[in-house]
Amino acid sequence: MGTIVQKFGGSSVADKEGLFRVARIITRTYDQGNNVVVVVSAQGDTTDDLIEKAREITSSPSRREMDMLLTTGEQISCSLLAMTIQELGYPSISLTAWQIPISSDSNYSNARIKKISAERLNRELDQRKIVVVAGFQGINKYDDIATLGRGGSDTTAVALAATLKADLCQIFTDVDGVYTADPRIVPNAKKLPEISYDEMLELATLGAQVLHNRSVEMAKKYNVNLEVVSSFRDLPGTTVKEEVIVMEKMLISGVAKDDHVARISLIGLPDVPGIAFKLFGLLGKKNINVDLILQSVGRDGTKDISFTVSSDNLEDAMQLLKEKYPDKTIEFNDNVSKVSIVGGGMQSNAGVAAKMFEALYNAGININMISTSDIKISVLIDREYSKQAVQCIHEMFFHD
Amino acid sequence: MGTIVQKFGGSSVADKEGLFRVARIITRTYDQGNNVVVVVSAQGDTTDDLIEKAREITSSPSRREMDMLLTTGEQISCSLLAMTIQELGYPSISLTAWQIPISSDSNYSNARIKKISAERLNRELDQRKIVVVAGFQGINKYDDIATLGRGGSDTTAVALAATLKADLCQIFTDVDGVYTADPRIVPNAKKLPEISYDEMLELATLGAQVLHNRSVEMAKKYNVNLEVVSSFRDLPGTTVKEEVIVMEKMLISGVAKDDHVARISLIGLPDVPGIAFKLFGLLGKKNINVDLILQSVGRDGTKDISFTVSSDNLEDAMQLLKEKYPDKTIEFNDNVSKVSIVGGGMQSNAGVAAKMFEALYNAGININMISTSDIKISVLIDREYSKQAVQCIHEMFFHD
Repeated sequence: MGTIVQKFGGSSVADKEGLFRVARIITRTYDQGNNVVVVVSAQGDTTDDLIEKAREITSSPSRREMDMLLTTGEQISCSLLAMTIQELGYPSISLTAWQIPISSDSNYSNARIKKISAERLNRELDQRKIVVVAGFQGINKYDDIATLGRGGSDTTAVALAATLKADLCQIFTDVDGVYTADPRIVPNAKKLPEISYDEMLELATLGAQVLHNRSVEMAKKYNVNLEVVSSFRDLPGTTVKEEVIVMEKMLISGVAKDDHVARISLIGLPDVPGIAFKLFGLLGKKNINVDLILQSVGRDGTKDISFTVSSDNLEDAMQLLKEKYPDKTIEFNDNVSKVSIVGGGMQSNAGVAAKMFEALYNAGININMISTSDIKISVLIDREYSKQAVQCIHEMFFHD
Repeated sequence: MGTIVQKFGGSSVADKEGLFRVARIITRTYDQGNNVVVVVSAQGDTTDDLIEKAREITSSPSRREMDMLLTTGEQISCSLLAMTIQELGYPSISLTAWQIPISSDSNYSNARIKKISAERLNRELDQRKIVVVAGFQGINKYDDIATLGRGGSDTTAVALAATLKADLCQIFTDVDGVYTADPRIVPNAKKLPEISYDEMLELATLGAQVLHNRSVEMAKKYNVNLEVVSSFRDLPGTTVKEEVIVMEKMLISGVAKDDHVARISLIGLPDVPGIAFKLFGLLGKKNINVDLILQSVGRDGTKDISFTVSSDNLEDAMQLLKEKYPDKTIEFNDNVSKVSIVGGGMQSNAGVAAKMFEALYNAGININMISTSDIKISVLIDREYSKQAVQCIHEMFFHD
């Protein structure tokens, strides 16, 4: 007997069959004596269809109105799922963000959860109801609806688990766990039985689409016991937790690629202190996250700064930089990919980076930029080689 | 300079073209210096599509979850309309029931508005924003969403007008006013320039689909200046108000039919006091409204009671009656229609009823039941003759 939060993605609840399959997973957990809170995303293509409706009207919809529009998707799926659970003969109730409430900041389209009230949730759970919560949404101090950004329903689930001090937060996806690489690219990729928060965080940030990085951050912060499992097959998934026993041979836990990046270069900046600070401060203020950074000495006492941003931010970043540095040469390349390896085991093994570079060298793939941390190494390469890079690196580390 | 509430139905905002047409009507009103509050229904077939989604899952969805589901339709259309108004260069904001809030009772699927707070509405209007409100919804004391029943968006509009003491409440429809009969049935039906609340109320209750009866009730109660106009053509509509100057010749203001009725008969009830009271009390408790009632003397000191209910309630009513009167003969006929004439002018003219019956007699249409009030006469006839009945009665009164 415990409290379990279960999150289901949009493809899992896309139709009647999906809803009943998911409802049976939920009621089985309930029958084991658990209190169950469910978080659900919008059905199938609903969000895309709603975005299309807005795009027909305007190329630049107000973000406040956009969030008002998009959150109907989760309201539809959570009420339908509650009906499905009731149809199986179990008590259930759907709740939206304002009914709980889930409070967020006012950064429409990419808001952060600030606080969740446990009062109504506990009242419904005390009556042994299965509570189905609309994911992806919060309400701000003006009583307006704000969405939590890409993968926001994962964050809703983890935040609810933290609030309710749940015993387990299960993220049901169309894959059945976290793999050493994307199985669509590397067919012999292995499923990891467990992975640490930090490794999962790096993998999530680096483009593995299994979990959203903010949900992993929050799970780490509140020590939420997280599990990634399949909503289609009844198989053991991957557990994400604080400490993981690393087998000695397991130097890295995964290889990931992110094709959703672009590189920007500023050429011939004056070589004086504060240049980088001003540049990245400027981008930060506009909520543009910078990832890899490379600073090199240019000609005649100048310096060049290159960095990567998400493809989504390229246009905004270029416009901002052209305004602020009208007399500088600013170049960009949106035909690049970031390929990374992640692993707690690499800290104590000096040869890991060399082994990764060797794999790329053998495949004739040129490295543009390099970035390292305690538990990851990322390289920027031409996008056309990104699949091949993942395959040859995976082969190098996991060929047995 | 005043405050105007404008309500647009689902067919008016069904697509991009509709949204922009409606937005131009709204911004023209705003440009004339008015504060504008807009109420909008769900787009086109949205509500039917959502009902179908629920029906796929269960034949008896919980009404609470059904209301949670259906109200997304209005949330979608109000955010899209706010975006459209913004695209035309005007400030606008969409608001749902809980954001205002519009408080209702807990009678899911057919709730009544209890109170509307003017605070947020006025705050947005003071900033000269066009406020777009999701129609058809309220929130109850549990913070759950309840819908206001058929035509509920009309009621939302009138209630907002009453709350804001608006100068005018305009109901935009796909017809351009209130006619002496449905123009699809009677091609030479005449548009009424004005009609009294009471007459409109009777017409609405009797099946004229122009305005929902509860919205007219509320308009009468709070003396809201109501106008029915076309959202497609720029023509004068029909004004609904307290006192209307009746031309002497204009005995009646309209003929209406309602095919959505069924007759139930209980045969052989004991002829003792309290029988009707118990019977209709029973139905009232289940929220089943009874309309025409006929009591007749049966055989052997018994009596028979016949009455009509909405077709929607037939199944529930029959089930209830079979439970409570297991030993009585209960018959029903769902192949009937109610045809009515309405008019303030009939009070002082004795021959009106006779004229109506004469028209039906001439056409060979048999009358099942009759009911009269100060300003209306209703008859129940076989459904196959309902169109013909409207036509011949209209011809009798309006043939010039």
